[in-house]
Amino acid sequence: MRNTFGHIFTLTTFGESHGEAVGGVIDGMPAGIDIDMEFIQSELNRRRPGQSAITTSRQEADRVELLSGVFEGKSTGCPIGFIVRNTNQHSNDYENMRNLFRPSHADYTYFEKYGIRDHRGGGRSSARITISRCVGGALAKLVLRQKGISIQAYTSQVGDIALDKDYSRYDPSLTETNAVRCPDQQKAAEMEALIAKVKAEGDTIGGIITCVIKGCPTGLGEPEFDKLHASLGQAMLSINAVKGFEYGDGFNSATMRGSQVNDVFVPSTGDQQPITTTTNHSGGIQGGISNGQDIYFRVAFKPVATILTEQQTVDKEGNATTFTAHGRHDPCVLPRAVPVVESMAAMTILDYILLRNAVIL
Amino acid sequence: MRNTFGHIFTLTTFGESHGEAVGGVIDGMPAGIDIDMEFIQSELNRRRPGQSAITTSRQEADRVELLSGVFEGKSTGCPIGFIVRNTNQHSNDYENMRNLFRPSHADYTYFEKYGIRDHRGGGRSSARITISRCVGGALAKLVLRQKGISIQAYTSQVGDIALDKDYSRYDPSLTETNAVRCPDQQKAAEMEALIAKVKAEGDTIGGIITCVIKGCPTGLGEPEFDKLHASLGQAMLSINAVKGFEYGDGFNSATMRGSQVNDVFVPSTGDQQPITTTTNHSGGIQGGISNGQDIYFRVAFKPVATILTEQQTVDKEGNATTFTAHGRHDPCVLPRAVPVVESMAAMTILDYILLRNAVIL
Amino acid sequence: MRNTFGHIFTLTTFGESHGEAVGGVIDGMPAGIDIDMEFIQSELNRRRPGQSAITTSRQEADRVELLSGVFEGKSTGCPIGFIVRNTNQHSNDYENMRNLFRPSHADYTYFEKYGIRDHRGGGRSSARITISRCVGGALAKLVLRQKGISIQAYTSQVGDIALDKDYSRYDPSLTETNAVRCPDQQKAAEMEALIAKVKAEGDTIGGIITCVIKGCPTGLGEPEFDKLHASLGQAMLSINAVKGFEYGDGFNSATMRGSQVNDVFVPSTGDQQPITTTTNHSGGIQGGISNGQDIYFRVAFKPVATILTEQQTVDKEGNATTFTAHGRHDPCVLPRAVPVVESMAAMTILDYILLRNAVIL
Amino acid sequence: MRNTFGHIFTLTTFGESHGEAVGGVIDGMPAGIDIDMEFIQSELNRRRPGQSAITTSRQEADRVELLSGVFEGKSTGCPIGFIVRNTNQHSNDYENMRNLFRPSHADYTYFEKYGIRDHRGGGRSSARITISRCVGGALAKLVLRQKGISIQAYTSQVGDIALDKDYSRYDPSLTETNAVRCPDQQKAAEMEALIAKVKAEGDTIGGIITCVIKGCPTGLGEPEFDKLHASLGQAMLSINAVKGFEYGDGFNSATMRGSQVNDVFVPSTGDQQPITTTTNHSGGIQGGISNGQDIYFRVAFKPVATILTEQQTVDKEGNATTFTAHGRHDPCVLPRAVPVVESMAAMTILDYILLRNAVIL
Repeated sequence: MRNTFGHIFTLTTFGESHGEAVGGVIDGMPAGIDIDMEFIQSELNRRRPGQSAITTSRQEADRVELLSGVFEGKSTGCPIGFIVRNTNQHSNDYENMRNLFRPSHADYTYFEKYGIRDHRGGGRSSARITISRCVGGALAKLVLRQKGISIQAYTSQVGDIALDKDYSRYDPSLTETNAVRCPDQQKAAEMEALIAKVKAEGDTIGGIITCVIKGCPTGLGEPEFDKLHASLGQAMLSINAVKGFEYGDGFNSATMRGSQVNDVFVPSTGDQQPITTTTNHSGGIQGGISNGQDIYFRVAFKPVATILTEQQTVDKEGNATTFTAHGRHDPCVLPRAVPVVESMAAMTILDYILLRNAVIL
Repeated sequence: MRNTFGHIFTLTTFGESHGEAVGGVIDGMPAGIDIDMEFIQSELNRRRPGQSAITTSRQEADRVELLSGVFEGKSTGCPIGFIVRNTNQHSNDYENMRNLFRPSHADYTYFEKYGIRDHRGGGRSSARITISRCVGGALAKLVLRQKGISIQAYTSQVGDIALDKDYSRYDPSLTETNAVRCPDQQKAAEMEALIAKVKAEGDTIGGIITCVIKGCPTGLGEPEFDKLHASLGQAMLSINAVKGFEYGDGFNSATMRGSQVNDVFVPSTGDQQPITTTTNHSGGIQGGISNGQDIYFRVAFKPVATILTEQQTVDKEGNATTFTAHGRHDPCVLPRAVPVVESMAAMTILDYILLRNAVIL
Repeated sequence: MRNTFGHIFTLTTFGESHGEAVGGVIDGMPAGIDIDMEFIQSELNRRRPGQSAITTSRQEADRVELLSGVFEGKSTGCPIGFIVRNTNQHSNDYENMRNLFRPSHADYTYFEKYGIRDHRGGGRSSARITISRCVGGALAKLVLRQKGISIQAYTSQVGDIALDKDYSRYDPSLTETNAVRCPDQQKAAEMEALIAKVKAEGDTIGGIITCVIKGCPTGLGEPEFDKLHASLGQAMLSINAVKGFEYGDGFNSATMRGSQVNDVFVPSTGDQQPITTTTNHSGGIQGGISNGQDIYFRVAFKPVATILTEQQTVDKEGNATTFTAHGRHDPCVLPRAVPVVESMAAMTILDYILLRNAVIL
Repeated sequence: MRNTFGHIFTLTTFGESHGEAVGGVIDGMPAGIDIDMEFIQSELNRRRPGQSAITTSRQEADRVELLSGVFEGKSTGCPIGFIVRNTNQHSNDYENMRNLFRPSHADYTYFEKYGIRDHRGGGRSSARITISRCVGGALAKLVLRQKGISIQAYTSQVGDIALDKDYSRYDPSLTETNAVRCPDQQKAAEMEALIAKVKAEGDTIGGIITCVIKGCPTGLGEPEFDKLHASLGQAMLSINAVKGFEYGDGFNSATMRGSQVNDVFVPSTGDQQPITTTTNHSGGIQGGISNGQDIYFRVAFKPVATILTEQQTVDKEGNATTFTAHGRHDPCVLPRAVPVVESMAAMTILDYILLRNAVIL
């Protein structure tokens, strides 16, 4: 529990925003996988701050060092320890946070839970912690690639600017062609303009990320409590600022009839699957188990809590006071959250592939 | 993993729709709690089939028997085993399901995963399995009551008929006054009429359940992967037919600015909490940890897959065929899902109270 | 944790000596296994009380009922719930135990931990609880049989009467030919005579059980904390009255030189293993992982704490008093512990076979 | 499972003998504890190689770096990541091990399990890995110290030289006064002489470590499978080269009568415990739960497998060959294993204190 994710393929993380380093241990990595360090670093670079005009300007190289579990370029099946040093620590920027609780941050709740907190940059609750998730996700992706499974996320909404078509109508290869990571170039430009405007006002904006998993085999998912979508949901909801998760038809299902949304089975022609469905309202999962169709889901993000205008709040002694953040702020977390969503999905799918193997004699 | 829910307070379940019995084991029940059998049975009765005109007509007494862990009316801290016998088993009703896969049911995915399935009434994937969750939830509620924590869910939408006000504007005591379990009598009547119409057409309809947790202490939630809302999300997503989960502002957050949704802290007057917030966009959870405000969330249900009209499908050999369900069908699962939602929430909150205790010396 | 054993193949148990029933849930049972009910019952009969003159005279049919997870004679991969009703409950026999703590029983420690205890026959701490382990073990054996893995335990010492030869020198098929379950007929007779003498004196006696696992594949065991022998050790130490565990050369290793105990590898001739060892001081496990040789270990049991002579003790209020047990007593637990040892070993090996599968893509 | 130890207080480790570093993540460390770095380093120094004439001559500073979870000298309740760099890596010393399997090492079993292995110095199976355990143990000891719980281990046997008295007859403060870590100065000198002789012959020798836990509260231990002694047993058996574990009377119990070993309860005078026992054959644990008396146990170690004489073996292709280790060898692992035994015990006790808290409302 707590700082470990997964059942068989597990990621245990540590680190605070302004400590020595962030890092973790990946356990259950299958043996004999080629460890492509360039790919792993490139995944980290996708979530690195300062990569574009519409993200936070904190400068971090975020160089990952794998400390174990790899021998002569291949995974050995032993745990992979890794660290990423924190370099750009302006701890003094945060002295004004030491004794008060920032609105809608985790300052108050951490203090209530532990009686002590590292106030610098949000400490453990900082989005910086997601670095470790991207390392785990990159390693999981190396395995999934071998199995022909692809995982691609993209920004589908920022504020009121939303993609209006089904995921299948977009070309995921366009996602990385713009700073906001949206496959629709026109909408991407609008989103970037909105984020720039919000940033100029010292404010922040929310949005939605859509994620699609293709090539997933049938039979993944543990009935009852660990249904595949339930674990994907927990994985996504564990990402900072996430407020909602839906898969397949999601909340739209509430207004539908069974006769409208049932996915009819038909014999499959050609491909490896014996059976396919004519529609995919289910989102590739039935009874908590993958059915071989595309798995797709949407993740809702609230706007980042750090804004540059003065806000009322309360200090440790319970006295009313005010707080104004200064320096860096991240107007929209979505562009950098895209690789985090993919990483959590990749680790979940790999974990469930291994879990499925565990029940086969 | 698999058929066990929770970390410290755990529920392990077993059973199929038409097997001998459904049941489970509750572990981690605190010792010395008065076991109110009448209350436990009354909770089971809330999800029992055949309780009203708008639910399935399967007749089951659903009498629960506690087999251990209770001594002279009090919990002993030892595991509580329990069973509910299946009595109304019309297994022959299901012969026509033996060799084919019903659309949008778990028949195909179970068969792909295990190579064998109990086809009678959906076997393990039947909603009947939620009985065990209600027993676990009832026991958790007995503990939470002592701590002044209340958990109340209600039907907030069926099809296009939706409650339009904030949860705080409804009187939860009215929820049990109608068959659909909606605290707005007018809307409840409309919902019941819609469900009756859908039932007459042999069709089914989806909806949304809202759940509110009051009196929750601060400090519940395990940062990083087991955030309180992430575990609530997994718990809800593990309920049959659930397609989405959101808490606090949920998906609406996507369109908001930070300056609109940040919850400002103010000194608290009178009550036990030193600090409170002027708004509760966060839904009572910040950084994955409870902040003492009301926790509220919404759960989206798809329409039940069993409809009484003929549907295309495929048999085990992969040949196209058709399937028509006959006999009982449940036009809308929401009324009976309300106690299940409450049960999963109650078990999660109790589990996290115990988890929190575990970190205090 | 707590009342669940195993990682992938898990057994969760419940029940007290004089409650309604004992039972549990077996999760992770591979699908498609023929469920031989006669075999399962026969395993329970091996640990049943009253089966011979040298065991307790409590009369229990101990009929097991499987409630789920089996369909048309085969396992479905779904959890198997089971119960065994308690029938011969002389609860009044135990009124004199209600307010005092029996020496070397768990009465005091349960009371200290939970503040309440079911005093009847030791409640949860009774050896009767091992019934559930034998059900789980019997199911595991059904799977292991298919894989050509055999697990056989026998009584190798009672008091000072000990088998003096290596396990390989005895014919395990003779184990069930006598009441004490010892493959050496001569020693068995001496052991039975000793137990009868001890019983007549109202006293009890300890002993040692040896267990041998043949046909175990290589590669079982999780390096670091969950080494195969570490989990076997925990499994055995969790059996009532066990005080010690050793495998391979065990405690004798303390006096040896590396040059005496190293197991030299040689090419294997004929059989399926490419490599074998000329000796097996290691007990079939190296670095916590099975090497394909026989796995063997020894388990030390203390004498049962219930004796029929008066003993000093203290009551709940902390006052000195005396206690004399009357009625049934079990002079030597070993004969009935043999199937329990086998069951824990069988569940551990199956769990590790499934765990190993989990790391293979 | 696998590379994580514990339930609430957990240690997850990584690293190989000749990789970049060894390290891990400690989760569940209670918040607000003063982190005494000097003490932590001193514990590491106790297991460091090259500390005396009777251990391996590998030179390693073994400087530990805590990377997170500590703020202004106190634990924050967040995970503590740590690393110890490997500096003295003579990887080329091991080229002759690359393609063959050393007798009684884990080379063959790792290769069988993973199909690949880091052959340098035993890779993951090296005793060097126990560094991480000592870091976790040192942190646990910092907490236990506050609770008045002491854990002390000592070498009680090397080869045939054994302490013949009960643990209570020795002064643990003398343990650190000699290189072999034995509280009996005379026996210590004999043990050192024996180890020196064995070392000169290029051979190795086994032994036994005794461990005593004082001041442990009542109520620690999870009945059924996670009995306190069962978890202590697993913890000890997970240490390299351990072949056996016994607690209280251990294997001697096999020859005893109940009337000889039952621990009679008597009212306690003066101290905080209401009740005490006149004897302690039980070893401080009854029914798997601590009873407030001293907990003591013995751990048997086999001789280290690395000897300097030529041995037969087999290469990866299955051909017979020979192997002679050269360079460093460790004639007796016990002196350096003493802090490892203490560390595993300390982590187990702290974990169970936190587990116990979890069941108290």
